[in-house]
Amino acid sequence: MAGSKLWGGRFVGATDPVMEKFNASIAYDQRMWDEDIRGSKAYVMALQKAGLVTQEEMEQIHGGLDKVFVEWSSGKFHIKPGDEDVHTANERRLKELIGEAAGKLHTGRSRNDQVVTDMRLWLRNGIDTLKGNAIELINTMVERAAVEIEILFPGYTHMQRAQPIRWSHWILSGAIAGNPFNIDRELLRKELDFDGISINSMDATGQRDFVAEFLFWGSMCLTHLSKMAEDLILYSTKEFSFISLSDAYSTGSSLMPQKKNADSLELIRSKAGRVFGRCAGFLMTLKGLPSTYNKDLQEDKEAMFDVYDTVHAVLQVATGVISTLKVNQKHMEAALSPDMLATDLAYYLVRKGVPFREAHSCSGKAVYQAESKNVPLNQLTVKDLHSASPLFDSDVSSVWDYTSSVEQYSAPGGTARSSVTAQIEHMRAWLKAHRE
Amino acid sequence: MAGSKLWGGRFVGATDPVMEKFNASIAYDQRMWDEDIRGSKAYVMALQKAGLVTQEEMEQIHGGLDKVFVEWSSGKFHIKPGDEDVHTANERRLKELIGEAAGKLHTGRSRNDQVVTDMRLWLRNGIDTLKGNAIELINTMVERAAVEIEILFPGYTHMQRAQPIRWSHWILSGAIAGNPFNIDRELLRKELDFDGISINSMDATGQRDFVAEFLFWGSMCLTHLSKMAEDLILYSTKEFSFISLSDAYSTGSSLMPQKKNADSLELIRSKAGRVFGRCAGFLMTLKGLPSTYNKDLQEDKEAMFDVYDTVHAVLQVATGVISTLKVNQKHMEAALSPDMLATDLAYYLVRKGVPFREAHSCSGKAVYQAESKNVPLNQLTVKDLHSASPLFDSDVSSVWDYTSSVEQYSAPGGTARSSVTAQIEHMRAWLKAHRE
Amino acid sequence: MAGSKLWGGRFVGATDPVMEKFNASIAYDQRMWDEDIRGSKAYVMALQKAGLVTQEEMEQIHGGLDKVFVEWSSGKFHIKPGDEDVHTANERRLKELIGEAAGKLHTGRSRNDQVVTDMRLWLRNGIDTLKGNAIELINTMVERAAVEIEILFPGYTHMQRAQPIRWSHWILSGAIAGNPFNIDRELLRKELDFDGISINSMDATGQRDFVAEFLFWGSMCLTHLSKMAEDLILYSTKEFSFISLSDAYSTGSSLMPQKKNADSLELIRSKAGRVFGRCAGFLMTLKGLPSTYNKDLQEDKEAMFDVYDTVHAVLQVATGVISTLKVNQKHMEAALSPDMLATDLAYYLVRKGVPFREAHSCSGKAVYQAESKNVPLNQLTVKDLHSASPLFDSDVSSVWDYTSSVEQYSAPGGTARSSVTAQIEHMRAWLKAHRE
Amino acid sequence: MAGSKLWGGRFVGATDPVMEKFNASIAYDQRMWDEDIRGSKAYVMALQKAGLVTQEEMEQIHGGLDKVFVEWSSGKFHIKPGDEDVHTANERRLKELIGEAAGKLHTGRSRNDQVVTDMRLWLRNGIDTLKGNAIELINTMVERAAVEIEILFPGYTHMQRAQPIRWSHWILSGAIAGNPFNIDRELLRKELDFDGISINSMDATGQRDFVAEFLFWGSMCLTHLSKMAEDLILYSTKEFSFISLSDAYSTGSSLMPQKKNADSLELIRSKAGRVFGRCAGFLMTLKGLPSTYNKDLQEDKEAMFDVYDTVHAVLQVATGVISTLKVNQKHMEAALSPDMLATDLAYYLVRKGVPFREAHSCSGKAVYQAESKNVPLNQLTVKDLHSASPLFDSDVSSVWDYTSSVEQYSAPGGTARSSVTAQIEHMRAWLKAHRE
Repeated sequence: MAGSKLWGGRFVGATDPVMEKFNASIAYDQRMWDEDIRGSKAYVMALQKAGLVTQEEMEQIHGGLDKVFVEWSSGKFHIKPGDEDVHTANERRLKELIGEAAGKLHTGRSRNDQVVTDMRLWLRNGIDTLKGNAIELINTMVERAAVEIEILFPGYTHMQRAQPIRWSHWILSGAIAGNPFNIDRELLRKELDFDGISINSMDATGQRDFVAEFLFWGSMCLTHLSKMAEDLILYSTKEFSFISLSDAYSTGSSLMPQKKNADSLELIRSKAGRVFGRCAGFLMTLKGLPSTYNKDLQEDKEAMFDVYDTVHAVLQVATGVISTLKVNQKHMEAALSPDMLATDLAYYLVRKGVPFREAHSCSGKAVYQAESKNVPLNQLTVKDLHSASPLFDSDVSSVWDYTSSVEQYSAPGGTARSSVTAQIEHMRAWLKAHRE
Repeated sequence: MAGSKLWGGRFVGATDPVMEKFNASIAYDQRMWDEDIRGSKAYVMALQKAGLVTQEEMEQIHGGLDKVFVEWSSGKFHIKPGDEDVHTANERRLKELIGEAAGKLHTGRSRNDQVVTDMRLWLRNGIDTLKGNAIELINTMVERAAVEIEILFPGYTHMQRAQPIRWSHWILSGAIAGNPFNIDRELLRKELDFDGISINSMDATGQRDFVAEFLFWGSMCLTHLSKMAEDLILYSTKEFSFISLSDAYSTGSSLMPQKKNADSLELIRSKAGRVFGRCAGFLMTLKGLPSTYNKDLQEDKEAMFDVYDTVHAVLQVATGVISTLKVNQKHMEAALSPDMLATDLAYYLVRKGVPFREAHSCSGKAVYQAESKNVPLNQLTVKDLHSASPLFDSDVSSVWDYTSSVEQYSAPGGTARSSVTAQIEHMRAWLKAHRE
Repeated sequence: MAGSKLWGGRFVGATDPVMEKFNASIAYDQRMWDEDIRGSKAYVMALQKAGLVTQEEMEQIHGGLDKVFVEWSSGKFHIKPGDEDVHTANERRLKELIGEAAGKLHTGRSRNDQVVTDMRLWLRNGIDTLKGNAIELINTMVERAAVEIEILFPGYTHMQRAQPIRWSHWILSGAIAGNPFNIDRELLRKELDFDGISINSMDATGQRDFVAEFLFWGSMCLTHLSKMAEDLILYSTKEFSFISLSDAYSTGSSLMPQKKNADSLELIRSKAGRVFGRCAGFLMTLKGLPSTYNKDLQEDKEAMFDVYDTVHAVLQVATGVISTLKVNQKHMEAALSPDMLATDLAYYLVRKGVPFREAHSCSGKAVYQAESKNVPLNQLTVKDLHSASPLFDSDVSSVWDYTSSVEQYSAPGGTARSSVTAQIEHMRAWLKAHRE
Repeated sequence: MAGSKLWGGRFVGATDPVMEKFNASIAYDQRMWDEDIRGSKAYVMALQKAGLVTQEEMEQIHGGLDKVFVEWSSGKFHIKPGDEDVHTANERRLKELIGEAAGKLHTGRSRNDQVVTDMRLWLRNGIDTLKGNAIELINTMVERAAVEIEILFPGYTHMQRAQPIRWSHWILSGAIAGNPFNIDRELLRKELDFDGISINSMDATGQRDFVAEFLFWGSMCLTHLSKMAEDLILYSTKEFSFISLSDAYSTGSSLMPQKKNADSLELIRSKAGRVFGRCAGFLMTLKGLPSTYNKDLQEDKEAMFDVYDTVHAVLQVATGVISTLKVNQKHMEAALSPDMLATDLAYYLVRKGVPFREAHSCSGKAVYQAESKNVPLNQLTVKDLHSASPLFDSDVSSVWDYTSSVEQYSAPGGTARSSVTAQIEHMRAWLKAHRE
């Protein structure tokens, strides 16, 4: 019967059942049952303070809401036809439990206020959980970096071998990209800080900036992880063989018995698209809406929940992958090759006073010469090198040492042992500060 | 036990339960249970023909698959832990029912082939359903247009009143934008035509063009409907009052007793964002993947199902809204105003040999004059009009008739009665052709 | 000749001219000529400090760079074939001016470092300009709100008349949505703070978070403005007639002499899509890239410049529109109707002790009764009202006053005069703080 | 002076110069000067036929338009202040050349008609060019595939070595993904077929489906190419060393003399994001617009031009890359390893009557055994293999042959010589058909 709907006395036509289902959100918003009850308990206190419900009525409503709480948490709450959202369902149940007094609960409070408050409460908790997941991942990375600091391997730019770096340097480049987690969380916390108040009532109910920003934060976060996943998928190819994934994060092929696929990493890589799609879709829904509440805003919740669930799973799986993967130090070091020291060869000339551009050109000539003769760069004789620059001398042999090369980069952020150690210490301090 | 997984004999580590859940798709791909069984039944016939299973084995497998079919269709199929997708579940159950012979079913067939075949089969059916929904919507629009052809109201460009048009002309502008439904379906049908074959095996398993194109088709379709919804929301404002929505497609406010909101239309408008978000997300997931199968492609199914469900609901609700809305002819006609005939006033001069640009300028002067004198444009005297152009004469009075104005546009696509009737006939013929 | 390229001595093949153009970025990155020179001047000082160039060389390079500066700022810098980006062009010119010493400038500095530093410098300035534009817009809104505080008009939800509000309340809902400008700027400033340093060299060159965040900030900002534009387009329809746009921000029709279109607002509304498309495109480009620098990142600059230019224009045009539009107070007030006080009618009963849900239902019955009798809600007699609730009495007449209704909402964020004044004061203080 | 604007006689205020620039489109729409002139010449013929201009006036206008044509094509056309778009500019110039008769050109034709017609004409030509580019690329791929059919290398799924395939099979998987080019073009051609007519005038001016579909087509096309680029970048890493890019499509590093980066492929990979961003942005702009023309639609042109230019460049560069890259057959074949024949080992058992799932499990045990003993799979003795299955016998040695393995897949679409040859022939026939 239409009369049992909230807008009660006015409607005379029946609702199309397809429309009823299209309109309903309870299938997904029941996730906020706890926040809805908490919000209502607080609101009735405000009503009592304003003299709109008596002390006795307040206690009656609180008692009823506590019973509703118990029903939900014990899995005994029954959703009935006509419960279009969790707010309606809770109010309907409250009325069954305590009678007419339930009708006072929503004095001067619109559904839109209630929904947006519940969402903010839910997301505040959700962000705490995600923060915990992120902290675990970063911690795993930092501690691995600490233990495996002596392992050298090629740094790549453009997927081409560039210069030797420490493996720990690579790990931290991911952990540090994880840093923004906190900055964004502060931004959101500010948004969600209930000590503060919305300064304009139209703006409060009609905008969903906190949702859009959360969706974008999720997109940035997973875009970073998609890049880390790409690196690790690459490193786990037979051709690179730098790492082996734990069986716990691999799957085999239903067809090819020898395959061990990095499914976990491929799923991580894929989720950046999914999450950004939610962000793109929600922004498109918002575009050009008139101000204040429009039903279009109902798209906010499924997007928020899906992004939360996805980021939650990705962070946990990423932590598992990183903590269990095996590093193949032998293959990593075998991938270092003398031509990766060509920049060092140029620097050798720079130290003898040659302008860098000219030194770069001389080193390039040496590389070309080695390729022509089909020998490794460090096998060129001093005589060979003279055709590139007369300044090369026998002390050039000191260039051909990967560890020395790496140790040059001791500036902050560099790949020298001391610099990587400093990054580890920085991250440990950051973790300590953000775990409290 | 890991040994029960498909890749059987090789794995020694256990799988992280979070990873297991992250990896599993059965929560949503069980929707394709029927297609999976149909596909397997066909495949075993091919195996028998190739001499890889005997006639007896084939019959045994067919019998088993039929039992699995009955279990699913009667709601008695039990998904067990370890059933990571519907394909595994069906094979696991088949083995329980008929024993080892089940193991022959997948000779020479990869999971990826199976998945993509099931999806194509499912989508082919799905598109038939959506086509039916679209036909219903278009039919509703065409028949309304036929009945209400005499109603005139303002045509708007830039949301400003432009020229008088027939209400039916507006209705058909939506129905005709619906036309592409069919074109795209042909495109998809071509894709899905199982008489044809994929010409390259790598391409067949690694691309998902048919999914991406379906997602984009859904986006275009709902973008059109978002525009129709915007028009109708506008027309149902108190200020326009051109239409009233049926109560079956409206909702009231929990706070304001007098409100009747066009929630159905707002939801329709919002879904363009949701669906396009799915398309955007999936394209982003595809970007830069290596060729052949990567687990990233698993994002295809939820996107496909969600877009299907959304378009399915939107088309039905839109049909309901259009078929039940009440047209307020009085308000529509009251919104026609003489200044909307300013173009006709210019054409009056064009017919007397004035170049259009000059005529436009003269008519503009008349509009300005009417505004200055604060009278409707048709209340300017011939003398007044002379200051805009000496060619105005008493026969200018013939301009001020909305029906005559509308009847001028009798070219194909125009708003004259004959032209709109032709559009109706065209659409009826189209419907007849596409309903068979 | 290939030899003049930076990578000098090694390449033996020529470059495909299409590839050369595809690869080049100078057509758009020349916009950063100033930042490139400033960055190089600073870098050479660091080189001198490190003993890699002498005091004399540093002065020579500084002198040369100053000449390059003068050439650019006087429009006399000539881009030559082979100048693939602004950095190459400046270095090439420097070498022409001061000879070999120019070759020392880039010792130990990669192109990627240089590009990313120039972009950060450029964006820091750009954000200052945009901040100024935003401040102007917000100031215009706040001062209009202060002057026009006495004007009442209908507040809308779902595009349907809801409750009477102050026009200033609407204006401020936009201005306050503008508030986040500052929060995001702080975030970016933190990013761009050159007193701080990147903590990991791989992360520093390979990520473009500051660009992605700027693009998203632009998207959010223009999405807000698209919503404001939608409201104003609606309010400027003939049907609403709440506002008239200044001719300076309208255009006419080439066909219909009477038309005055809100092109400025339509363009503002459209740009949310454009800017978000840049954000979506860039995120998609980033997805799944390997770590450190890949040429794919070159997409960052055109996106950044386009978003900057678009937001820059939109903010200025929006300021112009808001400052010159004419408010039609008479039409606004005429749009207020007694049914918008139905919530007040319910509150009347709440004050007599009726639970809100019941009161809402009684008020709904009264609305339905008025509609059935075809009279305005405030024309129902007390006797009529009794059929909705026996508690209605002659003092119900006090409900039918729009100003009293509005004045009830004196809580922070409300639409009462005092509350709107407080919002104005809050925004003035905020403006004062952010203008320094 | 405002009076020189098209809407002539009515406007009294001046236009804000920022707004003027914001509103103007001539900076980019001048690209359609030719189409605009062609369209106007055709239109004036229709006017003459309708008796609205005389034969003499038509000839005068045609003569004037021909002069405008000559000015544009010789680079002598001068854009003047006030020329807001190419249509205004051409009409202004026509009037200067032939006087008042120019004013008759636009009788009964709105700017929106004109714009959309010009765009369709332009895009029709543009698509022809892109089709030619695509044909070139596909042809290059097919001919390479024909020449290099004997080269075997590992097929990968999940970036892990899967089974041996022919290099030509990989090439064709890209060429065949290129196939849809034509299908989409047919779709567009249908749209653009000027023999047909728009069936509803409101729909004709207010929708931009042909633009949106072109943008999506570009997105799909470049997404495919982004995947091909990813493969080739991977294959050109030092670790894979399967291919070497020509110097004409590589660049060096400004810092590291030994680097040779696949910039061309990275740029190709990046452009999928850019183009899809345009598509996403335009769809978002369209979402929720009211019907008929709104200025928001002005976003269509820059998007269309940018996607055209990008796809045009990408196709040409891709053709260059593919035609000049060097295949390192030795490295490709060295990457084949016996474990890639594990599926063949399972098939060996299948041929002896073992159900596939069991055979797969036996083969998996053999793989595990080989890994444990640290020997290649083909070095296991028959005795070793017996612990996996007693059915293994000395004839198992026939399994260890890559060419035989490849030749098994002779079904259509497979990697056997005959099958790949058939694909080449299919594509040659397709090329022949589409080159005419």
